[in-house]
Amino acid sequence: MPKGCPITRAHLPEPSLRRLPWYLAFLTTLRHERVEFVSSTRIAAEVGVEASQIAKDLSFLDIRGKTRIGYEVAALESALRTYLGFDEPHNGIIVGVGSLGSALMADRGLQRYGLDIVAGFDINPRITGTVVASRPVYGMDRLAEICRTWDVSIAAVTVPVENAQSVADIIMDAGIKAIWNFTPCRIRVRDNVAVQNTSIYSHLAVMYNRLYSNPSEL
Amino acid sequence: MPKGCPITRAHLPEPSLRRLPWYLAFLTTLRHERVEFVSSTRIAAEVGVEASQIAKDLSFLDIRGKTRIGYEVAALESALRTYLGFDEPHNGIIVGVGSLGSALMADRGLQRYGLDIVAGFDINPRITGTVVASRPVYGMDRLAEICRTWDVSIAAVTVPVENAQSVADIIMDAGIKAIWNFTPCRIRVRDNVAVQNTSIYSHLAVMYNRLYSNPSEL
Repeated sequence: MPKGCPITRAHLPEPSLRRLPWYLAFLTTLRHERVEFVSSTRIAAEVGVEASQIAKDLSFLDIRGKTRIGYEVAALESALRTYLGFDEPHNGIIVGVGSLGSALMADRGLQRYGLDIVAGFDINPRITGTVVASRPVYGMDRLAEICRTWDVSIAAVTVPVENAQSVADIIMDAGIKAIWNFTPCRIRVRDNVAVQNTSIYSHLAVMYNRLYSNPSEL
Repeated sequence: MPKGCPITRAHLPEPSLRRLPWYLAFLTTLRHERVEFVSSTRIAAEVGVEASQIAKDLSFLDIRGKTRIGYEVAALESALRTYLGFDEPHNGIIVGVGSLGSALMADRGLQRYGLDIVAGFDINPRITGTVVASRPVYGMDRLAEICRTWDVSIAAVTVPVENAQSVADIIMDAGIKAIWNFTPCRIRVRDNVAVQNTSIYSHLAVMYNRLYSNPSEL
């Protein structure tokens, strides 16, 4: 467990956790507009969540709104960022340095949200040995060693779907406890390993379907 | 509605739709392993969905499994790809050509799933006028015109969170009916506009939380 991580974190239900980044996004917008205070009613109207639910979600943070004034924007924004782990540095790797994998290695946004990609891994000898966005790309045989050296906690999987499970097995063998799966493969993991699926191509299918479903509106 | 799009598409419930890419992913893996037939029981074991639910989901496609043999892998894979819209070309744009936006412009994977990014848009004069991954980057004032010319149906939003809503308004004014929102902002849209949220940084928070929640297992 990283230093400074609030002990209450474990008690936050995951649906609440998934809403916190929405509140954070709105608070960032307000700060840019130089708004100093915001009520849970105002957040509710913007984010589309009941004000009572917002108050409940935010009660997990050690911050309270003031009657009639609401929450202090900058303080709540900062408390949310810390609570969500975005201020804590985490080391990650990218497995599969193809098009999406290289893109993620180059995405500076990840670092602003607490994830520092320390290396990429691939099986293609034309890719291994290269440097992408100032980070080295190694062969799979170096994965366990590099993860130990850098104390890597998160591995993003951006390989072709047919290799996703075998790559996940290698990642778990290296002792990594969180897999960020960008493929549509349903990875089977061991009990103490977390998977987060971010299947961007599956999301495309949902959008196509909505476009096709409302032809009269197009 | 694009040519060749099955008319039954509108009747598929969205939870079923969201499972279809998982089946497709597994079928692609099987094809690579030169497996010719697969039962819904086998898919069920791999994907973690009840076999009866799989049969129901697949009943929306015009393809049937054979008793004792199951589904023909290549035929089902192809039917799923077509059904999901991955074989149909769609034109898209990227609004916000920063780190993530450039990454998406360079991601050839999108094209394999039916999305051709025809242009990027930005407000930064150092970015507009440049070419990213063989596609031009324009100022926001050209957005409506370019979308008309290219018959754009999907706009990906990869701007800073505080600009997400104003950019979405410009996109809707241009007549685009599907917004792919990569920011954690809860974009407000008009009735006939679809939004798909793919907030990759929010997913990071969920992973951090799972890592923190199980310190004994780390």
